[in-house]
Amino acid sequence: MVLKLYFAPGACSLAPLIALEEAGADFEGVRLSLADGDQRRPEFLAINPLGRVPVLIADGQVVTENLAVLTTIAHRFPRAGLLPFDHPALLARAFELLGVFSSVTHVGFAQVFRPERFTDDKAAWPALAAGGVKTVRAGFDRIERILKWSDGEALVGDRFTVVDPYALVFWRWAPRLEIDTADYPAFTAHAERLLRRPSTRRALAREAGLVAVGAE
Amino acid sequence: MVLKLYFAPGACSLAPLIALEEAGADFEGVRLSLADGDQRRPEFLAINPLGRVPVLIADGQVVTENLAVLTTIAHRFPRAGLLPFDHPALLARAFELLGVFSSVTHVGFAQVFRPERFTDDKAAWPALAAGGVKTVRAGFDRIERILKWSDGEALVGDRFTVVDPYALVFWRWAPRLEIDTADYPAFTAHAERLLRRPSTRRALAREAGLVAVGAE
Repeated sequence: MVLKLYFAPGACSLAPLIALEEAGADFEGVRLSLADGDQRRPEFLAINPLGRVPVLIADGQVVTENLAVLTTIAHRFPRAGLLPFDHPALLARAFELLGVFSSVTHVGFAQVFRPERFTDDKAAWPALAAGGVKTVRAGFDRIERILKWSDGEALVGDRFTVVDPYALVFWRWAPRLEIDTADYPAFTAHAERLLRRPSTRRALAREAGLVAVGAE
Repeated sequence: MVLKLYFAPGACSLAPLIALEEAGADFEGVRLSLADGDQRRPEFLAINPLGRVPVLIADGQVVTENLAVLTTIAHRFPRAGLLPFDHPALLARAFELLGVFSSVTHVGFAQVFRPERFTDDKAAWPALAAGGVKTVRAGFDRIERILKWSDGEALVGDRFTVVDPYALVFWRWAPRLEIDTADYPAFTAHAERLLRRPSTRRALAREAGLVAVGAE
């Protein structure tokens, strides 16, 4: 299996980057700089016309959408336990959180970061941003409740799944919405534990350009 | 396995209703009327505080989010082939479409139907609605392209998956956005084929209240 992941420092592609490291996958990372507009260059738009990361290329197949990339990695490395395939109730719970993360909380962040996705009318952007922050806070409240209730080791059951690094992406984005992560102590403790995992350290080293492989 | 699905006529819950019928599942359907505000009654809010359908209850576990409900049904009835678990490339494709449907196209519809989810500022709602229609049209263009390219039998590979009834929900909602489905001939032919399936006919009979079971 030949795997290539297009990612960008600071983007939600951190989640699949961590998932691939967690699985011990042999993959090529291709680092884009969103600040330099790499995602709008013709060679990347030929791969993903939406100009978004992450993009996973698995045996020649282009896979876009964070949820699909994470699920694909979990299915391709079943022994890594990145989704609890052997436990139907936990699997449903994992997809519920992946669903709400991708279609609600992530959308809330997009209302702040990418208001042009919702409307061209710039007069509406401040209202959209304010509404987005409320949506993100509701998502953080839910994450906080789950972690308090479960003793905080993982968002689904008691083991790491792809749901955890997706939440870490949101935690990392919080300051850009002027959300104080100290308001969410269980979430913050969980994020700090995730940041200490070897997989996360390797993923962050790749983001920093400290892993010189392939097209990087 | 004891299964119960809360659904509402006209809502996106049609997709899991069709999926359960397609799997030949033995389940109890609980029909809510959104027009009558059933989704805001305390007994339903106790199940899903967001007041949204579909909700699947599987062996006592509450599963919300359409994507999670569809994925859970597919995992619980593997022989029904509702997701192509035996084909990694098609499975990735299915999750890519489920991801874009739930986090982009469905969000576009919500900008029109549920602008209060994005902002309390009513002055921004007309702009949000206009932007939502553009997003939905982009989603329809993508569906049309896929079906033209694949000869139109299914959105993923050549067999029915849960991706198909999710697309049918969008097709059915199009007139409410004043989108003429005739602009999308391959999508319309696909939707009409889906409407002729016995599973869809049974699901629509449940929506119409013609199947008197359980709490209906």
